[in-house]
Amino acid sequence: MDAILSDWLLERLDTDAPEPAYRQLFRLLQQAILSGRLAAGAKLPSSRTLGADLAIARNTVIQVYEQLLVEGYVETQSGSGTYVADTSPDRVDEGSAGAPRRAVRDRHRLSARGKRTIELSGVSKQQWGAFMPGVPDVTEFPLKAWTRLQSRIWRNPKPELMTYAPGGGYRPLRRALADHLRVARSANCQPEQIVITTGIHQSVDLAVRLLCDVGDQVWIEEPCYWGLRGILLSSGLKLTPIPVDGEGINPDAKHLARPPRLIICTPSHQYPLGMVMSLARRRMLLEYARQHNCWIIEDDYDSEFRFGIRPLASLQGLDTNGQVIYLSSFSKTLFPGMRVGYMAVPAPLADLFSLGLAELYREGQLMQQAVLAEFIDEGYLNSHIRRMRGLYAERRSLLIAAVQRRFGDALPVMGDEAGLHLVLGLPHLRDDWAVCRTAMERGIIARPLSAYYSVAKAAQVGLLLGYGCVPNEKIGPAFDTLADVIEEVSKAGRKTRRSVA
Amino acid sequence: MDAILSDWLLERLDTDAPEPAYRQLFRLLQQAILSGRLAAGAKLPSSRTLGADLAIARNTVIQVYEQLLVEGYVETQSGSGTYVADTSPDRVDEGSAGAPRRAVRDRHRLSARGKRTIELSGVSKQQWGAFMPGVPDVTEFPLKAWTRLQSRIWRNPKPELMTYAPGGGYRPLRRALADHLRVARSANCQPEQIVITTGIHQSVDLAVRLLCDVGDQVWIEEPCYWGLRGILLSSGLKLTPIPVDGEGINPDAKHLARPPRLIICTPSHQYPLGMVMSLARRRMLLEYARQHNCWIIEDDYDSEFRFGIRPLASLQGLDTNGQVIYLSSFSKTLFPGMRVGYMAVPAPLADLFSLGLAELYREGQLMQQAVLAEFIDEGYLNSHIRRMRGLYAERRSLLIAAVQRRFGDALPVMGDEAGLHLVLGLPHLRDDWAVCRTAMERGIIARPLSAYYSVAKAAQVGLLLGYGCVPNEKIGPAFDTLADVIEEVSKAGRKTRRSVA
Repeated sequence: MDAILSDWLLERLDTDAPEPAYRQLFRLLQQAILSGRLAAGAKLPSSRTLGADLAIARNTVIQVYEQLLVEGYVETQSGSGTYVADTSPDRVDEGSAGAPRRAVRDRHRLSARGKRTIELSGVSKQQWGAFMPGVPDVTEFPLKAWTRLQSRIWRNPKPELMTYAPGGGYRPLRRALADHLRVARSANCQPEQIVITTGIHQSVDLAVRLLCDVGDQVWIEEPCYWGLRGILLSSGLKLTPIPVDGEGINPDAKHLARPPRLIICTPSHQYPLGMVMSLARRRMLLEYARQHNCWIIEDDYDSEFRFGIRPLASLQGLDTNGQVIYLSSFSKTLFPGMRVGYMAVPAPLADLFSLGLAELYREGQLMQQAVLAEFIDEGYLNSHIRRMRGLYAERRSLLIAAVQRRFGDALPVMGDEAGLHLVLGLPHLRDDWAVCRTAMERGIIARPLSAYYSVAKAAQVGLLLGYGCVPNEKIGPAFDTLADVIEEVSKAGRKTRRSVA
Repeated sequence: MDAILSDWLLERLDTDAPEPAYRQLFRLLQQAILSGRLAAGAKLPSSRTLGADLAIARNTVIQVYEQLLVEGYVETQSGSGTYVADTSPDRVDEGSAGAPRRAVRDRHRLSARGKRTIELSGVSKQQWGAFMPGVPDVTEFPLKAWTRLQSRIWRNPKPELMTYAPGGGYRPLRRALADHLRVARSANCQPEQIVITTGIHQSVDLAVRLLCDVGDQVWIEEPCYWGLRGILLSSGLKLTPIPVDGEGINPDAKHLARPPRLIICTPSHQYPLGMVMSLARRRMLLEYARQHNCWIIEDDYDSEFRFGIRPLASLQGLDTNGQVIYLSSFSKTLFPGMRVGYMAVPAPLADLFSLGLAELYREGQLMQQAVLAEFIDEGYLNSHIRRMRGLYAERRSLLIAAVQRRFGDALPVMGDEAGLHLVLGLPHLRDDWAVCRTAMERGIIARPLSAYYSVAKAAQVGLLLGYGCVPNEKIGPAFDTLADVIEEVSKAGRKTRRSVA
């Protein structure tokens, strides 16, 4: 037996291989035991014998035996040697013999909600380049100021900043953000109402888990941000898409007759179409929510970038009843890879949201939050926003000029003078996906407007074009490439249309 | 009318206040309009008149009027002036008059799952100090090496590292982690199978959303990590707590007869009790999962810290059938505030998990991931783990010595020679919460063992004591303080027991 095992091992051990002898021997013995080649109860050769047979150090064999013992592959009987343990998984059938076996399906099956999440997925594989919507120009980020503050914070960090964070985020950052929201967004909020998250996705997810149950109805705007549907559906909610008109979200009598638990909207700058919610509509929403006990999520994603006019006050600032949950992030004002968002929640919910955040996500990253707090306190956030506002206004103008040079007024440009993208209507086409696919092959990112609709037959055809991250001099040439694609696809007159679930 | 308005405004404007005149005037007019004091159709005084009346610059008034116009509070009729707009929310009752009003409940109601999340919450308000379990000694983190690499990465970052990340994380980090898992944990995995998350919570949440539907059954260990219950319940899953014995999770015939969709376990080091899952049990679980088409999540949270013996191979490494999802994080090996975790998923699921991650959470933070990848490649992770392993072994011995000095062998110490905490049994007590509350008043953190149980009547009484973050010289004195509390509570013989839901 010993000799057979030694031969079998010798055939397989490779002393020239980069894998150390220890690991090779362990792996081979493990394999022999699991496969049954070494049966339960079999005695292993002594470490001295095996070491000599294999021409490896006895100590190596001892270490391997010890590890086999620790992991339960072998047992020792004191003084008498090392035996293969009985590790056969015999108990499985004891109780479960009568259990209904699941029909053999695709083994790598996702759940129903997992499948839907993947099918609906709207994330672009490319996240940088003309005309990626929603991405700011990260090359303009004030790196020097940031890294100076970062070095200062990292020089001698308090341990509390490096461990888990138990309550809503770094206090000085929450204070700075409450100040910022009061001044810039006319919001009503105190530092304790601010909860720091990793962005809009986490903020929505937290609100939904704390405020909505499986089966609850949510109003979303039609069209809306693609990311919402995955979060909401996988949390078990029922979505009711509400059309938007020139004044924003526009529920009709049928909708109003079935009050939802939650309303998610973009009052400052409808995403993606770009209109501002009118004051009458805002007051209607607040009054309706008050009467029917609904929550409102205000996604204020890029309100800082309005060109020529001041940003509008937030919906939250009009809410006297504590029903609006305000969301924003630094993805547009600083850079997306920072992954810092924040919410302002009604005062009675503030502690519950802080606790829920720690409970559900185990927050942290106070080091980065500390850098950000100093960045804001030293005025860099505001000066960066001011500078970028000018730059984005310029880029917007350049893109509109490029559109008009090629198409005159034949194609509608939608969206207020605000934000990081505009929408180019393609009313004569049936398939904006075809344009996007061909454009991508030529290195141009454009996102199909139809993909932002929940109901395919309601979808308008067009392209979201982000100008935020495109250097001025590239806007014209990049648009010309895209315009060629639009013309080709128009000529081809393809009628196939990818259905949007 | 003009004069009345001017007087009303004058009474309220405070030129000495820090709030600029612009904002004060805007706020007051907004308030007058929303309250109905200025009715729809009323004409506002000209900017010249109002400026003169209030003794503020006419330009300020013009700016305020413009902002009121933009926000929809007023309208202009060309040439004839500025009028209060009709913003009354009259449409609310049109359609919803007949809608059932929700019973007036607590307005700041949480959802049922939100309430449960808060009630179950297990997060400690203090996250640093003796004897916080699960927290490593962040003061030993190699700050210099980290900040040097951080400065290098930040000197001239590629824009792709600062925008959104579309696919599972920074490629070089995924490669480094696949290498690490193969060598250190005997895992079978390629870089594409690695998905970088913000920690165990996000990893579990992603797996659950992609693999489980509302109503699916999940096996969790009894006791288990407190954080699991909140995530799983709020995702609509049904939990079946499975008792553990000396060999780990131990389902009985009744359990086996009802196969779950998912099994979550801690094979290397049961959390919180500390035993290692036997090989027979591992093979049983894998075989059962294969037969009944279950997924297994292996939470390998602190396997790096085994003292005297090598870490055991992972369960994932034994899985030949692609059913194990392996989870780990840097919270124990580096520092929790980093918020970086990772999972190794079966190859056929790899792309779906990467996509799901981007879709559900909009990942990013590639800058930090790039620093971490270099940190690992330059060998700092391994050398830090080696060094800390020695330190934690020392601290564990010091804590055990302190226990024995005070209590001899009267109180059982549970847990293998591994990890960052041990469990001190208090079999003579009925209320470990009472000990923890009193200890906290004296500055000592201890977590009640009973809180880790899902079924209150199954709960053992004891304390989780983390030694990872306690300096050697403080272990004895801190334990003496705690021992005093234990003795006091024992004497008081309190019989009240906080029920653990």
